[in-house]
Amino acid sequence: MLLRIDHVGIACRSLEEAIERYSSVFGLAVVSRETNSEQGVREAMLATSDESSYVQLLEPLGDDTPVGRFLARRGEGIHHVGYAVADVVSALEAIGGRGVRLIDRRPRHGSMGASIAFLHPADLGGVLTELVQPRGVHET
Amino acid sequence: MLLRIDHVGIACRSLEEAIERYSSVFGLAVVSRETNSEQGVREAMLATSDESSYVQLLEPLGDDTPVGRFLARRGEGIHHVGYAVADVVSALEAIGGRGVRLIDRRPRHGSMGASIAFLHPADLGGVLTELVQPRGVHET
Repeated sequence: MLLRIDHVGIACRSLEEAIERYSSVFGLAVVSRETNSEQGVREAMLATSDESSYVQLLEPLGDDTPVGRFLARRGEGIHHVGYAVADVVSALEAIGGRGVRLIDRRPRHGSMGASIAFLHPADLGGVLTELVQPRGVHET
Repeated sequence: MLLRIDHVGIACRSLEEAIERYSSVFGLAVVSRETNSEQGVREAMLATSDESSYVQLLEPLGDDTPVGRFLARRGEGIHHVGYAVADVVSALEAIGGRGVRLIDRRPRHGSMGASIAFLHPADLGGVLTELVQPRGVHET
């Protein structure tokens, strides 16, 4: 069901400083920038050289957002992990049937045109987990 | 330099319970189990279906270990992210030269025969970051 690790989502106070750090230290390049008001973040996706996985840098749009509250509680660091799936709707149905609480019962809009959904960390050992069906990927 | 996300390292109180959770919820299979006394952990690697990335579950061997202290401070959750590199020695040299403090100045033994090294989270926005040169991979 989980094809690969699609990305790690990293909460930062300054998106520009974080981009500068990942560019200068690791040579990663920004492949997408978006503001997602539904999720309350400004974000950038930086591709690894295989172009199979990404570092997602997340700056909150305000204190009263999920990432804003995360920063207040825990400081900067890894916020979540996202796994690529072929079909997020069927994955949600299967996982929900196995007793994991779904933060999103239906997919919503994610980075770079993906369909995404979050699973509750309380049922996954404290790990906020995202399912990602990349744009143009369909169930096989 | 960073080829892809190799794994996320997840700190858990019970390795067996965490394996059971990732197996039953996501259908992930254990491909390796090890005890790494140098790092103070019992661990399991679970492969995603592309076999390109892994969930690494980490149970501390005691309270006075890095993962034991992490659990006491933050509870269960994502402990670190590991990126695959072609040559960990040259990657360390380059990254150290860019002002990031190295936890390991030389590679040490990681999961499944990899050569690994950790970078200091204080210089990487709170993210404990691991470089992984998988066994049998050489610089190209």
